Amino acid sequence: MIRSALSYPSKKNLVLQCLRRMSSLVSTSVSEVHPGVAHVTMHSPPVNSLSLSFCQELSQNLQVIHKDKSIDIILLQSDIPGIFSAGLDIKEFTQPKERLMEFWTAFQQLYIDLYGASQTTIACMEGSAPAAGCMLALSCDYRVMTSNTKAKIGLNESLLGIAAPPWLAQQMMDTVGSRVAELSLWRGTLYAPEQALAIGLVDELHENPRERALELAVAEFQKIPRQARAASKTLTRQKRLKHFHQERQADLEHFVNFITQDAVQTQLRGYLQQLAAKKNKK
Amino acid sequence: MIRSALSYPSKKNLVLQCLRRMSSLVSTSVSEVHPGVAHVTMHSPPVNSLSLSFCQELSQNLQVIHKDKSIDIILLQSDIPGIFSAGLDIKEFTQPKERLMEFWTAFQQLYIDLYGASQTTIACMEGSAPAAGCMLALSCDYRVMTSNTKAKIGLNESLLGIAAPPWLAQQMMDTVGSRVAELSLWRGTLYAPEQALAIGLVDELHENPRERALELAVAEFQKIPRQARAASKTLTRQKRLKHFHQERQADLEHFVNFITQDAVQTQLRGYLQQLAAKKNKK
Amino acid sequence: MIRSALSYPSKKNLVLQCLRRMSSLVSTSVSEVHPGVAHVTMHSPPVNSLSLSFCQELSQNLQVIHKDKSIDIILLQSDIPGIFSAGLDIKEFTQPKERLMEFWTAFQQLYIDLYGASQTTIACMEGSAPAAGCMLALSCDYRVMTSNTKAKIGLNESLLGIAAPPWLAQQMMDTVGSRVAELSLWRGTLYAPEQALAIGLVDELHENPRERALELAVAEFQKIPRQARAASKTLTRQKRLKHFHQERQADLEHFVNFITQDAVQTQLRGYLQQLAAKKNKK
Repeated sequence: MIRSALSYPSKKNLVLQCLRRMSSLVSTSVSEVHPGVAHVTMHSPPVNSLSLSFCQELSQNLQVIHKDKSIDIILLQSDIPGIFSAGLDIKEFTQPKERLMEFWTAFQQLYIDLYGASQTTIACMEGSAPAAGCMLALSCDYRVMTSNTKAKIGLNESLLGIAAPPWLAQQMMDTVGSRVAELSLWRGTLYAPEQALAIGLVDELHENPRERALELAVAEFQKIPRQARAASKTLTRQKRLKHFHQERQADLEHFVNFITQDAVQTQLRGYLQQLAAKKNKK
Repeated sequence: MIRSALSYPSKKNLVLQCLRRMSSLVSTSVSEVHPGVAHVTMHSPPVNSLSLSFCQELSQNLQVIHKDKSIDIILLQSDIPGIFSAGLDIKEFTQPKERLMEFWTAFQQLYIDLYGASQTTIACMEGSAPAAGCMLALSCDYRVMTSNTKAKIGLNESLLGIAAPPWLAQQMMDTVGSRVAELSLWRGTLYAPEQALAIGLVDELHENPRERALELAVAEFQKIPRQARAASKTLTRQKRLKHFHQERQADLEHFVNFITQDAVQTQLRGYLQQLAAKKNKK
Repeated sequence: MIRSALSYPSKKNLVLQCLRRMSSLVSTSVSEVHPGVAHVTMHSPPVNSLSLSFCQELSQNLQVIHKDKSIDIILLQSDIPGIFSAGLDIKEFTQPKERLMEFWTAFQQLYIDLYGASQTTIACMEGSAPAAGCMLALSCDYRVMTSNTKAKIGLNESLLGIAAPPWLAQQMMDTVGSRVAELSLWRGTLYAPEQALAIGLVDELHENPRERALELAVAEFQKIPRQARAASKTLTRQKRLKHFHQERQADLEHFVNFITQDAVQTQLRGYLQQLAAKKNKK
């Protein structure tokens, strides 16, 4: 059911590619014409929600790519029209404590594997990226978004009665500045593409983000020496990751304590019932 | 003489409200129509200077509100036309060492009580907010300022021969960005409302800031779940407060050592004499 | 050959001035009409490359000025048309380990002496300032650049296959914001004057940067009490310097380890051969 596609363009990786095609994980996106550029395509209907298993699978795929010296650019994209990723799967929030811990640990790991990738990463957003969907985009080095005004991006956790974790808030601050981040976290603002571009939350809008991302990868980013790109990335991200590792356990405990509060659980269950009611109406 | 008014709108607090009305602290601003929204009105003529006693009183009022679970939004305002607060009372700077220490400790505490409030706080500026008056505004979550071009806001300490404390400089950096803050601290820039809006030092200009602040509180901010607002606030402010507590003693010592320098005292006494001469002329 | 000129305008310093005129270090720029303002003029043809000896000499001159209580403003400028400084001397990168360590230590010291100067410092750029030339500018308090569109400024290290050190990356982040800095470090962007002004990398463009810098020094900056300027500067820079001292040894080791990698040395030697070939063609 869940399909996080990993497709290698280089011929050297045909074996791995074929192995993956045989498994249920392979999506249709393959582009062998551009050596060094890997597509990671999310395909977990209906909205690429980050469940425990989906987080784990994405992480696993990223870890495989990290070890593959032939790949130096990762394009993260979705195969589901109108959605990049809808963020964390809310159903996970109402699970027992043990499962909650396993879930949050997997989400933390996904952040480490994406934000800390030594490769250059481009988020290629053909649809919306709210909440943890926005985290996936913020963890990449560059963000290309559809110019379709129906798409939205932002950290809207507060509207659900919860708050983004500190490291995600920090990503937002690093990207759009402290004050804009502070206000948007508090208000739970979702931005249309033009607004997102104006505050620097995305780097480019394009009618065809996939086409543009590939063009950028080949015509611009691969022109910069690989070790210099990796070293520049380390410059700004290493201290964030070091701090994250120091706080990881505390972050896990804080999440579990916050989310299991009665007031929060009531709000979340109410939200899930609303969602279910909407579905049944249809 | 000093009147820092604390007026509770909710009926539950009528007893407290009445008690306070009987004391000399009560101002005229009362609005019982909006549950959960408290006005804290400064009324210490002529310019709401932050003297030792005024700092202590404001802190005390904020601490009372912090414990009141029925209040979730604080509107900080002034009853004096044309002035929000003129900042620290310069006369305090020429006092003996013991008093200087008591004064700075009270000023630090005011920062903690306002910046660290779990409630949502809105600075409602109908007049100027220079120096520590600007600190009061920066410590709130949102800033609405009059569009009257006579009003000014900024950290102009350098023109007096002194410097803002590091934690106030940090608030400025967090709000307008490092570089704009650095230049403005150095030059002691006071901004007109339009300029302040352009650099993000205030969030909105309005002909009637009180009316607008109340509207925001009820129509926008109370719509966001309370615990999420508090948690989002913690995200960005907790690490600043933690750092402040670590540095609090050093900050106190630095202030006293700096301010008691002969060159600084001479400049401050000269400034006070100028002020007195101006008064006598009138 | 190398001439880092130190010229004191105040009459009190005529002795020192004369002494320096007698040595090979003295350039022609002298302006005795403005007390308190010192010109530090770089004149190391062809492009003010920061070699080991040039770093040491600039540091030494700055240290002399630091101790001179009569000087409160430093104007850093170049006597070479079209160039402020081309950055580190690449030839130093291909030297043996011992020399590499000495070189990097001198470069670190130059940063400390310029960034940590208690005087107000103005970079007066009549030409380009790439890489470590940009570091010299970022270490000053204020940047005036020529409006000549041929001039460029930025951190273009990545195009050479290397990365700026973390403290230089931090200076860029502090000046233009995290995200703009991150992208520019990664891409190695060199900005034309108008672009540099737009992102805040320089503070002013002027047809005659020297004239404008002197005007600013006298008509604006000297009007602000000296101790307040120094104290404001401490506010934003002290914590960076403290952190730098903690990391200085690790930064040195990291530099030597990175630069002595085979892949990096090959790229650097290739670059030097290209440069030599160009010269011979001429």
